[in-house]
Amino acid sequence: MTQLKIIEEKKVHGGIQRRYQHLSQVLGCEMVFTLFLHENSEKETSLIWFLSGLTCDDQNFATKGGFQRQANQLNLAVVIPDTSPRGKDIPDADQFDLGQGAGFYLNATQEPWSQNFQMYDYITEELSDIVKELIPNFSGNESIIGHSMGGYGALQIGLKNPNRFKSISAFAPISNPTEVPWGKKAFSTYLGDNHEDWKEWDPVHLVSESETGHAPILITQGSADEFYPEQLLEDKFKKAVEQSNHALNYQFEKDYDHSYYTIQTFIDQHLAFHADHLDG
Amino acid sequence: MTQLKIIEEKKVHGGIQRRYQHLSQVLGCEMVFTLFLHENSEKETSLIWFLSGLTCDDQNFATKGGFQRQANQLNLAVVIPDTSPRGKDIPDADQFDLGQGAGFYLNATQEPWSQNFQMYDYITEELSDIVKELIPNFSGNESIIGHSMGGYGALQIGLKNPNRFKSISAFAPISNPTEVPWGKKAFSTYLGDNHEDWKEWDPVHLVSESETGHAPILITQGSADEFYPEQLLEDKFKKAVEQSNHALNYQFEKDYDHSYYTIQTFIDQHLAFHADHLDG
Repeated sequence: MTQLKIIEEKKVHGGIQRRYQHLSQVLGCEMVFTLFLHENSEKETSLIWFLSGLTCDDQNFATKGGFQRQANQLNLAVVIPDTSPRGKDIPDADQFDLGQGAGFYLNATQEPWSQNFQMYDYITEELSDIVKELIPNFSGNESIIGHSMGGYGALQIGLKNPNRFKSISAFAPISNPTEVPWGKKAFSTYLGDNHEDWKEWDPVHLVSESETGHAPILITQGSADEFYPEQLLEDKFKKAVEQSNHALNYQFEKDYDHSYYTIQTFIDQHLAFHADHLDG
Repeated sequence: MTQLKIIEEKKVHGGIQRRYQHLSQVLGCEMVFTLFLHENSEKETSLIWFLSGLTCDDQNFATKGGFQRQANQLNLAVVIPDTSPRGKDIPDADQFDLGQGAGFYLNATQEPWSQNFQMYDYITEELSDIVKELIPNFSGNESIIGHSMGGYGALQIGLKNPNRFKSISAFAPISNPTEVPWGKKAFSTYLGDNHEDWKEWDPVHLVSESETGHAPILITQGSADEFYPEQLLEDKFKKAVEQSNHALNYQFEKDYDHSYYTIQTFIDQHLAFHADHLDG
């Protein structure tokens, strides 16, 4: 039985936002996550996952995402996991895009990472089981959002679980990690040099392989995003989606960049998109 | 002529938010401030000042205040100054509630503070002149908001300038600084031990002295604010307002604390309150 400790509790926009700490069996370390619950606890409640980007933890979106007003109005619960295992006994790299803060939401197979860097299993199994117990009147319905590395995570986890997530959305996702510097570095480190092993973690490959269809996808990308040209490769993802006859709502927003200011601007649209599919 | 340098520019909720750096003649150091401009630059635009609390700079409200959506809709400009002079040549104290980050929006008279800690003159004169030049179609109308130490600053500056600010609002203001630990410490350090010299900087005294009336005031206070019982003394301020027959809209909000989560929850109400008086 997991021991959960509440380390922060805030009232915000009518709802309650709690930060929890727990010992993760899957990751082998203490982890934190933040859960926002709307104020109408008697209403049936669906769950939104928000996966954050490189260097972030659960607090970036909690403090700067501006999601609470709309989540409260739409009777949504929102969970924000941390982005990797952490601690002085956990492997790390002296680089912002590898190791602690850069878990890439996959299951590592290579030493020394494989023992702790199992973020895919942590999110889809262990943390899921914990969070669902914390939501009064949980509807059983879930959707997933992410930003940058977390946008990659949302696409990857959403596409790998087509029967679980009702809808998927992303801000500036790393859409084709097997072809860009951030992704190649992380995948070769965590998954090894056999590129065949990378495919099951790449959204472009996952969309192309999908035969049963996937959940509706919304992507918001800012034109002033400094990482857009080199790291995100959304065009490859868009093309793969088109060829597989799936639906993608792709919004290219003039002058917005890679920051949380873009997220706070468009988060209401993303939550409304998910609410439509969660209720449907 | 002041040299202004733009050190950050962000599109957010349709508007543009710029962070500037400049050499302040009044404070004798490089200063930063943030200015948000709504997107309808052809519309007449009024200015809101937001004064931040102890330990903050201009970025706390900029990133966590959640004000941009409503400010853009109401065609408002919002300026966020830093909270004190800063730099290695500027006096400081090894305490969070004194020195750099704790300017208290007054003009210090005591050594070694008096040369640089002139935040009242900086805000009401030097920075005002700079900001007004940066606002297209400035209406000439201004209102002022603040949080905690900045809530004190908003009350103090607003009450000292009854013909300038159309309305005043505060989140959890230090309302009676001459009677609470934070205020006594700052005032004795910056203003000396003669308590007569403190009065002109205390909102309770300023309200009591005011004969010509003052701008309408809105205060939001959370019931779970850890500083409410000892540091804020809003009851003294409320009583002084009542005795002077002035109007105060005082909102006591259950379970909200001293954090920016409270500000982001009620900032739309504050901006709407100011817009009503700025247009009137």
